Amino acid sequence: MADSRAGRGGRTQEEIRQRHLGELLRRVHVEGALSRAALAGRMGLNRSTIMTLTAELAAAGLVREEKPAETGRAGRPSLVVTPEPERVFGLAFDVAVDRLVAARVGLGGRILERREAVRPRAGVDLDDVVGVLAGFGRELAAAAAPGAVCAGLGASYCGMVRRADGMVRYGPHLGWVDQAFGAKLADGLGLGLPVEVGNEAHLGAIAEHTRGVGVGADDLIYLHGDVGVGGGILVGGKLLDGDGGYGCELGHMLVNPFDGRPCLCGSRGCLEAEVGEEALLDLAGRSGELFGRDGIRAVVALAGQGDARAGRALDHIGDWLGVGVVNLINLFNPAVVVFGGMLRDLYPGTAARVRSRIDAHVLPVSRERVRLATTALADDTTLQGAAELAFSALLADPLETLTARPPSPGRTADRPRGGS
Amino acid sequence: MADSRAGRGGRTQEEIRQRHLGELLRRVHVEGALSRAALAGRMGLNRSTIMTLTAELAAAGLVREEKPAETGRAGRPSLVVTPEPERVFGLAFDVAVDRLVAARVGLGGRILERREAVRPRAGVDLDDVVGVLAGFGRELAAAAAPGAVCAGLGASYCGMVRRADGMVRYGPHLGWVDQAFGAKLADGLGLGLPVEVGNEAHLGAIAEHTRGVGVGADDLIYLHGDVGVGGGILVGGKLLDGDGGYGCELGHMLVNPFDGRPCLCGSRGCLEAEVGEEALLDLAGRSGELFGRDGIRAVVALAGQGDARAGRALDHIGDWLGVGVVNLINLFNPAVVVFGGMLRDLYPGTAARVRSRIDAHVLPVSRERVRLATTALADDTTLQGAAELAFSALLADPLETLTARPPSPGRTADRPRGGS
Repeated sequence: MADSRAGRGGRTQEEIRQRHLGELLRRVHVEGALSRAALAGRMGLNRSTIMTLTAELAAAGLVREEKPAETGRAGRPSLVVTPEPERVFGLAFDVAVDRLVAARVGLGGRILERREAVRPRAGVDLDDVVGVLAGFGRELAAAAAPGAVCAGLGASYCGMVRRADGMVRYGPHLGWVDQAFGAKLADGLGLGLPVEVGNEAHLGAIAEHTRGVGVGADDLIYLHGDVGVGGGILVGGKLLDGDGGYGCELGHMLVNPFDGRPCLCGSRGCLEAEVGEEALLDLAGRSGELFGRDGIRAVVALAGQGDARAGRALDHIGDWLGVGVVNLINLFNPAVVVFGGMLRDLYPGTAARVRSRIDAHVLPVSRERVRLATTALADDTTLQGAAELAFSALLADPLETLTARPPSPGRTADRPRGGS
Repeated sequence: MADSRAGRGGRTQEEIRQRHLGELLRRVHVEGALSRAALAGRMGLNRSTIMTLTAELAAAGLVREEKPAETGRAGRPSLVVTPEPERVFGLAFDVAVDRLVAARVGLGGRILERREAVRPRAGVDLDDVVGVLAGFGRELAAAAAPGAVCAGLGASYCGMVRRADGMVRYGPHLGWVDQAFGAKLADGLGLGLPVEVGNEAHLGAIAEHTRGVGVGADDLIYLHGDVGVGGGILVGGKLLDGDGGYGCELGHMLVNPFDGRPCLCGSRGCLEAEVGEEALLDLAGRSGELFGRDGIRAVVALAGQGDARAGRALDHIGDWLGVGVVNLINLFNPAVVVFGGMLRDLYPGTAARVRSRIDAHVLPVSRERVRLATTALADDTTLQGAAELAFSALLADPLETLTARPPSPGRTADRPRGGS
């Protein structure tokens, strides 16, 4: 007897439909082409519901239905639902320590077109960075197919970002403090859309979980090396962002508190001070001679050729990286630990030392199943994470979001208004 | 047009009603007596729905409705909904390093009656522990009011527990490995109910979040000191338990990897090796003379009286505890860090050192708002967490769970079957 009254506070039919539309679109966005039968199974809905939902998304131009490739099995094959990568795109931006990247990314996650610029390592002010990225973004939007719609804008930034508004609170490698990066980039692009901004390692964790080495691993730790070391940690599939959005600063774990190397944050003995670029080049005796990602690769190559100092430098990195990873495994009991950025280059040569620390110091039950790996998305991990931010509003509420999107420059440039 | 079909995959009216009943019961269980008006506001439902839900819970004997105390305001006052603490209880058990505790806890969280035994520090086997606790539990159940119903059984254990089945995987302080504690305690109690088992620090975190110093703080870290240091970490209000349930082992963060004291886990330089009981007593020159909680309090008192070795021992604890807390704040950006168990006694005398480490090493944005505190539930934090486990099934589905509960011994002992 209480049922109908109690039901008033529950979800309305409209909310349920919106949720289902979003879930269906997210599944084909993440997994690619899926048959109606597969969608029905994954979503726990019947096929006729899937057909209705698909028809709505297709009418909006978000997906299309196709006959599947020949299966060789008898019977009428289930139609395959595919996202529309050319018609619906996001713009993704990546402010990394050594480069600025922008890309037009199709629904489904494929990078359709990109622009990239090498960036000086410090002293670049906000207006310069925004100027370059906004120029790239306008070009990429203008080059989209006629009728294409920009679903959203996402950016990855190599520093601490306030969740609420994309304010860069602390970006030590560019010397930025409290800079309104998200708002200024949105202004510069002039697309009438906000820019969602995330920390690069947070976004890297999401990208590797969505389409990389961490698919299916809901407890995942991503370590992103550039000059320093950032972290993205998923707990039960959700990003750990803490009380203010500043969680996961694993580069500033104090691994060597009383005898450590100075850190850019003002402290000493932070993980990033012991395993970052400066430590490696200094210990290898190559400071002032080698720089950046190329410098790191050169030291790794030298160690491989038997250079003793380079070898000892890598051992130092391995020992301290191992301490950091031990702590993370004991704290988080993750299924997988992923190394990205310059740690992609460093991990293979230090893996034995990292592993031996884990064997010595991680509690047995937590090391039973943990997997260590480098990124599957190579150096596009953070950019792909920014693309996921760009699509987040669309995937939460596909039809409403699409309706609210202004025509993209590509569309208005190529044909008169109302001509589609 | 798609609405009704899409709705099929959504929640049924029955599921919505069950969820609302559980939420209402949880609110009065956690917050105590609440007016219908307050419940309507908190749950976003209208008053007539609240009235219907309350009537169902009252008919089942889970809550009662009362006139509120005189408010002095005009108008008809909203009836107040109160949990039934005597009629519906849980049994909570706590296997701590130095004691065994059992309690009958009323719905609403009040401890109604308890039994406690001092426990030798090591070499106690599973059967002894289960024998003592099962005896306590049977006495407590038999002493319940006639007609009272036992809603569930929860236990806190000072070691690593497998989430799925209450198996103690690793309990270094008792020398337990892979012991079926939960199943054996359930057998010994003979109440026909399973025992939910959790790690003591995980449960402590939940208890302090539910009714202690962390109410409203969804990002919370709880450090529990006994011989070692355990941790419970809430991320967005949810316990971090990792891929296998073994997360939060913050006592085994490697804070002093190359120069550290030996740890019971076989490693060196773990946080608990540097700040645990043994380190304190050893550094204070009191090993073999003082022991356990009393010994720790004695060292704290000696330091207060100007004993130089005791003072230096506390400084050592403060320095390394500070390193651990720095790492946790940089990783988790918590709103509050809570010290429990023997760390309740140690924290006040080490707070200045801990704070100075935080000031030196935590990134400014993460230390903006973080609060440090000792437990509000004193030494009952872990026991209260076990009680929350005991009530978890009831709060998830009140009416079904109650129906499935067998009569408690108290009820059958006092009156013939069918006599209620």
